[in-house]
Amino acid sequence: MPRPANPKTRTRLLKKGGDLISTRGFNATGVQEITSAAGVPKGSFYNYFESKEAFAVEVLSEYWDLVVATYGPVLADDSMAPLARIARYFEGLAEFHERRRYAVGCLIGNMALEVTPSSEPVRIKLAAIYRQWTASLTKCLEEAQAQRELPAGKEPRQLAVALIDAFEGAVTRAKVERSRSPFDSFQTFVLPALVT
Amino acid sequence: MPRPANPKTRTRLLKKGGDLISTRGFNATGVQEITSAAGVPKGSFYNYFESKEAFAVEVLSEYWDLVVATYGPVLADDSMAPLARIARYFEGLAEFHERRRYAVGCLIGNMALEVTPSSEPVRIKLAAIYRQWTASLTKCLEEAQAQRELPAGKEPRQLAVALIDAFEGAVTRAKVERSRSPFDSFQTFVLPALVT
Repeated sequence: MPRPANPKTRTRLLKKGGDLISTRGFNATGVQEITSAAGVPKGSFYNYFESKEAFAVEVLSEYWDLVVATYGPVLADDSMAPLARIARYFEGLAEFHERRRYAVGCLIGNMALEVTPSSEPVRIKLAAIYRQWTASLTKCLEEAQAQRELPAGKEPRQLAVALIDAFEGAVTRAKVERSRSPFDSFQTFVLPALVT
Repeated sequence: MPRPANPKTRTRLLKKGGDLISTRGFNATGVQEITSAAGVPKGSFYNYFESKEAFAVEVLSEYWDLVVATYGPVLADDSMAPLARIARYFEGLAEFHERRRYAVGCLIGNMALEVTPSSEPVRIKLAAIYRQWTASLTKCLEEAQAQRELPAGKEPRQLAVALIDAFEGAVTRAKVERSRSPFDSFQTFVLPALVT
């Protein structure tokens, strides 16, 4: 694989290809469509990525980095109580899905359901993302427990995992109902019930 | 569309095509592959189904009917307390996913994430399935409330929706981790926390 000649081309492939994968799915998106969308010759794809699978892993990386950079900081915002940060964090993610009219969903969930059966590299990347996601919430929930906001009997890591799963399930239903209601239900019912 | 000549062919197309869609996704599965798997000429597909979308709606119907017939009866089993029925119901679904080694996932969630953005008939069918699923759990939770197993302050329908979303999120993570752990977490932590 020759050294990539143009980092901007790589970025454009990831952006345009990521959009296609997000809206149409991984299996339905061909390399030809990715390169067409990015306005580069098909062959050049392999100057930047070893395979479509390797490309998908990079797309997931970029998506996750963006989520962390955009929505993550509130979890460490000392000006708010830890549980309020958690609520604000999930509200941020809900607004993200609302802006995309619930039609795209979460790339993590999409790839988890569509691609993990056929691609071990994608599955391993997703497992790493779930671990990081769980760790970031666990840390904030540990703070909540230290400040006696969260009952001593709750296990922060188990709670973090439960919140992520409940939220991803809400994203799925939001796509079906094209509605904010699953996120409202998460905020007003699931989150309070799980942390008390 | 001529009248289908052979109901067995229709059943075989649904079975073989449903397996392909379940494991590889809807967009990645072509009509040609469905007919090849069923051992019939490609053209005959359209004697039975108007389109691949109409076929997907039928596959979802069959999947849901099977889930209802196999796992639904416990929800009406008077020999058990209502909340124990709910726990047994989700344990049945978890065992279903365990038998398939967490690799296939739930066709409802898979189709919700992959196909709802591009197919309105599939989205409408999924919305109907979610409504029926919610209704069946709501009924059992209402019984739990009437028998004072469930606190009077809990809204059965809202709780039903929360349980479904949390479970679907667990199915997603089980595919990523190839593990029963998300289902154990649902049974031992999420379900008890939400119903108390």
